[in-house]
Amino acid sequence: MRVAIIMGSTSDLGKMDPAVSILKEYGVDVDVRCLSAHRAHKGLSEFIAETETNGTEVIIAAAGMAAALPGVVASQTVLPVIGVPLTSAALDGMDALLSIVQMPSGIPVATVAINGGKNAAYLALQIMGIKHPEIKDKLSAYRKQMDEDAMKANEEVIAKYK
Amino acid sequence: MRVAIIMGSTSDLGKMDPAVSILKEYGVDVDVRCLSAHRAHKGLSEFIAETETNGTEVIIAAAGMAAALPGVVASQTVLPVIGVPLTSAALDGMDALLSIVQMPSGIPVATVAINGGKNAAYLALQIMGIKHPEIKDKLSAYRKQMDEDAMKANEEVIAKYK
Amino acid sequence: MRVAIIMGSTSDLGKMDPAVSILKEYGVDVDVRCLSAHRAHKGLSEFIAETETNGTEVIIAAAGMAAALPGVVASQTVLPVIGVPLTSAALDGMDALLSIVQMPSGIPVATVAINGGKNAAYLALQIMGIKHPEIKDKLSAYRKQMDEDAMKANEEVIAKYK
Amino acid sequence: MRVAIIMGSTSDLGKMDPAVSILKEYGVDVDVRCLSAHRAHKGLSEFIAETETNGTEVIIAAAGMAAALPGVVASQTVLPVIGVPLTSAALDGMDALLSIVQMPSGIPVATVAINGGKNAAYLALQIMGIKHPEIKDKLSAYRKQMDEDAMKANEEVIAKYK
Amino acid sequence: MRVAIIMGSTSDLGKMDPAVSILKEYGVDVDVRCLSAHRAHKGLSEFIAETETNGTEVIIAAAGMAAALPGVVASQTVLPVIGVPLTSAALDGMDALLSIVQMPSGIPVATVAINGGKNAAYLALQIMGIKHPEIKDKLSAYRKQMDEDAMKANEEVIAKYK
Amino acid sequence: MRVAIIMGSTSDLGKMDPAVSILKEYGVDVDVRCLSAHRAHKGLSEFIAETETNGTEVIIAAAGMAAALPGVVASQTVLPVIGVPLTSAALDGMDALLSIVQMPSGIPVATVAINGGKNAAYLALQIMGIKHPEIKDKLSAYRKQMDEDAMKANEEVIAKYK
Amino acid sequence: MRVAIIMGSTSDLGKMDPAVSILKEYGVDVDVRCLSAHRAHKGLSEFIAETETNGTEVIIAAAGMAAALPGVVASQTVLPVIGVPLTSAALDGMDALLSIVQMPSGIPVATVAINGGKNAAYLALQIMGIKHPEIKDKLSAYRKQMDEDAMKANEEVIAKYK
Amino acid sequence: MRVAIIMGSTSDLGKMDPAVSILKEYGVDVDVRCLSAHRAHKGLSEFIAETETNGTEVIIAAAGMAAALPGVVASQTVLPVIGVPLTSAALDGMDALLSIVQMPSGIPVATVAINGGKNAAYLALQIMGIKHPEIKDKLSAYRKQMDEDAMKANEEVIAKYK
Repeated sequence: MRVAIIMGSTSDLGKMDPAVSILKEYGVDVDVRCLSAHRAHKGLSEFIAETETNGTEVIIAAAGMAAALPGVVASQTVLPVIGVPLTSAALDGMDALLSIVQMPSGIPVATVAINGGKNAAYLALQIMGIKHPEIKDKLSAYRKQMDEDAMKANEEVIAKYK
Repeated sequence: MRVAIIMGSTSDLGKMDPAVSILKEYGVDVDVRCLSAHRAHKGLSEFIAETETNGTEVIIAAAGMAAALPGVVASQTVLPVIGVPLTSAALDGMDALLSIVQMPSGIPVATVAINGGKNAAYLALQIMGIKHPEIKDKLSAYRKQMDEDAMKANEEVIAKYK
Repeated sequence: MRVAIIMGSTSDLGKMDPAVSILKEYGVDVDVRCLSAHRAHKGLSEFIAETETNGTEVIIAAAGMAAALPGVVASQTVLPVIGVPLTSAALDGMDALLSIVQMPSGIPVATVAINGGKNAAYLALQIMGIKHPEIKDKLSAYRKQMDEDAMKANEEVIAKYK
Repeated sequence: MRVAIIMGSTSDLGKMDPAVSILKEYGVDVDVRCLSAHRAHKGLSEFIAETETNGTEVIIAAAGMAAALPGVVASQTVLPVIGVPLTSAALDGMDALLSIVQMPSGIPVATVAINGGKNAAYLALQIMGIKHPEIKDKLSAYRKQMDEDAMKANEEVIAKYK
Repeated sequence: MRVAIIMGSTSDLGKMDPAVSILKEYGVDVDVRCLSAHRAHKGLSEFIAETETNGTEVIIAAAGMAAALPGVVASQTVLPVIGVPLTSAALDGMDALLSIVQMPSGIPVATVAINGGKNAAYLALQIMGIKHPEIKDKLSAYRKQMDEDAMKANEEVIAKYK
Repeated sequence: MRVAIIMGSTSDLGKMDPAVSILKEYGVDVDVRCLSAHRAHKGLSEFIAETETNGTEVIIAAAGMAAALPGVVASQTVLPVIGVPLTSAALDGMDALLSIVQMPSGIPVATVAINGGKNAAYLALQIMGIKHPEIKDKLSAYRKQMDEDAMKANEEVIAKYK
Repeated sequence: MRVAIIMGSTSDLGKMDPAVSILKEYGVDVDVRCLSAHRAHKGLSEFIAETETNGTEVIIAAAGMAAALPGVVASQTVLPVIGVPLTSAALDGMDALLSIVQMPSGIPVATVAINGGKNAAYLALQIMGIKHPEIKDKLSAYRKQMDEDAMKANEEVIAKYK
Repeated sequence: MRVAIIMGSTSDLGKMDPAVSILKEYGVDVDVRCLSAHRAHKGLSEFIAETETNGTEVIIAAAGMAAALPGVVASQTVLPVIGVPLTSAALDGMDALLSIVQMPSGIPVATVAINGGKNAAYLALQIMGIKHPEIKDKLSAYRKQMDEDAMKANEEVIAKYK
């Protein structure tokens, strides 16, 4: 099981580290790359070509501003591509969100929330879960745990406000 | 291979018909439901439970306005859920887009463009393609065809403007 | 007299504490819960069911981002539901506002300002005031006090700028 | 049982007629007024004063553009005030939404969706339902019917797409 | 020569102090009031009535969020009313701007920039200048000075970057 | 009494005709010009210079898109300048509104609603009213009439919905 | 003198025809292509490579929605690239505008107005004018004509409103 | 080779310094001016006239808020004008962006990203590159270096996450 995470800029690494950690926790091999759609597109195309043969099942692409990366990746593969809009100096990530989600017909990008690196990882796992039952089971267990944690947090809130 | 398409309102059927057609063209069984997150949530939960056992691999959920449907579906399954924001009378779909894409950590929705029913279908196919090589192959062929059509359209444009 | 306050995340507690205080000042019993629409929906449904029989008259639901909570609560009760959109990391609460206010026909959410926890409490009191004259009287007195305070503040301003 | 509906302009009457009909169906007396916050505010204040003594339980105020009406009404009563933002020539109702929902502390307006006249009526009914069990029962029956209609619509969708 | 400055909240005083200073520099009497449209409207109406007889020529009204104040003032006088939208905790002043500028036909508010207290003062002076030649002359001198200062600043920039 | 109305484009004439009519009704001389800030700025400067000596008291400037006209006019006169943002093919007038209202310190533009030609005229009249009592009186009478018409319309609404 | 115009979709041809006409009027050779960044990127790269050797001086790229085309073109050439954001079914072109203008450091796109095909042509001509004096002269003449036409239109307006 | 950089305010100097540095690195003479469209327009017109005869090939104009400067400059020259929208106290630069990019037909401004001073410099260089092969060559070398740096950064990322 293998997922590629591509960022447009090394300054985005911190925002995507949680995604790497979550995927590794689930036993997924993660290839992290910093390959801008605008600055390293030959390297990008070569890396996308690699993913065709090395067992990659999902590609996560994160970028800010005029965030062309996820769409450009999506146009060069039929693997599912998850797009993560990142905030930058202005406009609170709205520029990146619209640049990623409003893809033309035939080339979808599965867009998650602004700065939603963690959810990109979970979405990748849910996608791989349709093929790998052990991932699906682990996700189901995680959800159950999440529900239990939520109920426990709720108990604490009840106690606090009684 | 099976995909579920859930809409919040019967008035959205027309917008999602192209998704049904595309999926059927690829030999996918499609279950279409009209089950609002706000109006039929028991029926919705029962249908989501069904998808766990009937071989459904992807769920597409389309809704407008305060579009809770995709997120509510996503919270009840670990299957990948694709969200389609639909335009309604006001705000040009921006309300639905933000209601769908800005999901909290742990429960992602794979959001596509406003009124992006077709791309929801293609994204579902790309997701299933990681498990079913015949889908992946067909998608690759479609992309190749799309490129060829694009090049042909370009030839016509060149001729027209010469 | 009883009001339920439901939050989507424990991190929102601080934003809703003023609402709890105001309600208690008016002698209202307050049940505080942390039950996300996406993470604990069975617990949420059970709690909403409880409100049907324990004398709850108003439910306040506060959430950020793709804030489905108020709408999901509203869909499971005919008690009046007040929605409080909360700011989160990006978009300044506009995502939560649109996710809460743009409800479909038949299932209204009484939406207050972004981070408007206090006003949610006052709106709950005004709603209960139509049944409990002592609440209505206390609110009228509070408004009178508010007007007097405002006039006093105005006197100070006049003095300062004379 | 009595509800007042105030509009800012006679051109808004058509948008609020469905609210009148719904309330009358539930046996509620409805006082409809056209009293702009900016053009008839003496008449407005007099009418609000009337509502204090004629048994009015909820006030619905609908306005477009710089929609001050709901807030101005709310500042003169401790009855719950429901605000309906209306679309006008430009900005798709976003101006009215922000003018109504972003009320300062102490004076809430229960805001519903843009052009959400129907939901204003249902919210008024839910509010009155905490005092009048027959309204609450009728609303519960309506919701049940709504769920059944939704399930029936779903059956038709299933049949159509089989 | 007299100008009234009305604010919705004492917390806005700091933002309007520069306006007071500018007006006083021009020899204008300034009445500063803190009278919310929502909290002190009787006091507000009385003060507006006063302006009719005490020689006030322009009213400046500053408010944030659902900023009804300028419009409510404008509806009770035929003096020119200048509205200043103020930023508050969320939405960067866009809520106040739309609440102030989008006035219905017949009741205009002369809206200036978000947090534009200074420009409200200059606009008031320009308005009074059509009646008081000494104000107009002083404004012309100020503009000339502003131009000269601008040219001097430009000289410094030229020198710095030579 | 004289008002200048400047438009950026002949296509805006229709939108400003009501302003011309209103001003003429009040006995005001109106100079209408079509002088874009971007296309005819020498002509524009000459016309602004004329207004200094021909008794003009207020200038109204209307423009769409990157609506520089009102600000450019304001920078060349100390007469009060009223800006009217006009809708054009895209963005519903939001571009013009921000281009006009967000003026830098020292050069205010009195901005009215999007497509608010009528209100530009009324604002001009209110401004001239501080100097010309007959205008002020006529405006007061108009407001009184407006209130009476509003009350009459309200009576009709009451009758209709009884 | 040669300019390339690239569109993302044949449906955009109508919007860019005026640009072709304007350029041809100035004696510029125009190569029109329909080469989407997402659908025909090999063809696109080949065409960009061609422009390096065939004397192309400016590239105009027009696209709607998640408009990656101008940025992708810009990343593969050091010729100046002009981006034209086009409106599509939703969001009024705001998605395309942000996708085109918010380019990262090092790879600028010269962005013009939404649907601003004509201005893309004029900008291309102004750019070429720094090298080709005959273009610059013709542009200066056009501007002079534009000013004269504007003054003539103004005369007609003066006559009409006298 | 000569580029003019004009700012609306000395407070913007810091934001444009990187543009000056980049241009000087390429051997370009840079004239920096601080000449607001609203405050120093005679000085501005004189400076624009100077650029006609001193060999200036591109003008960069940077401004915030109601950013008329780039458009006003563009209307007085047929040199290519690059507009840089700057953030100010509110609205995150969206006001400046729309004020600059939405120019009317015939007077384009080549708009770059919000606070995009660096890209304004690179765009100026690309424009001059069509005339000065040494600039074009240097830009090509810079792009190559950028690609190599990007690939090196990518190698480090690969190593870090192995």
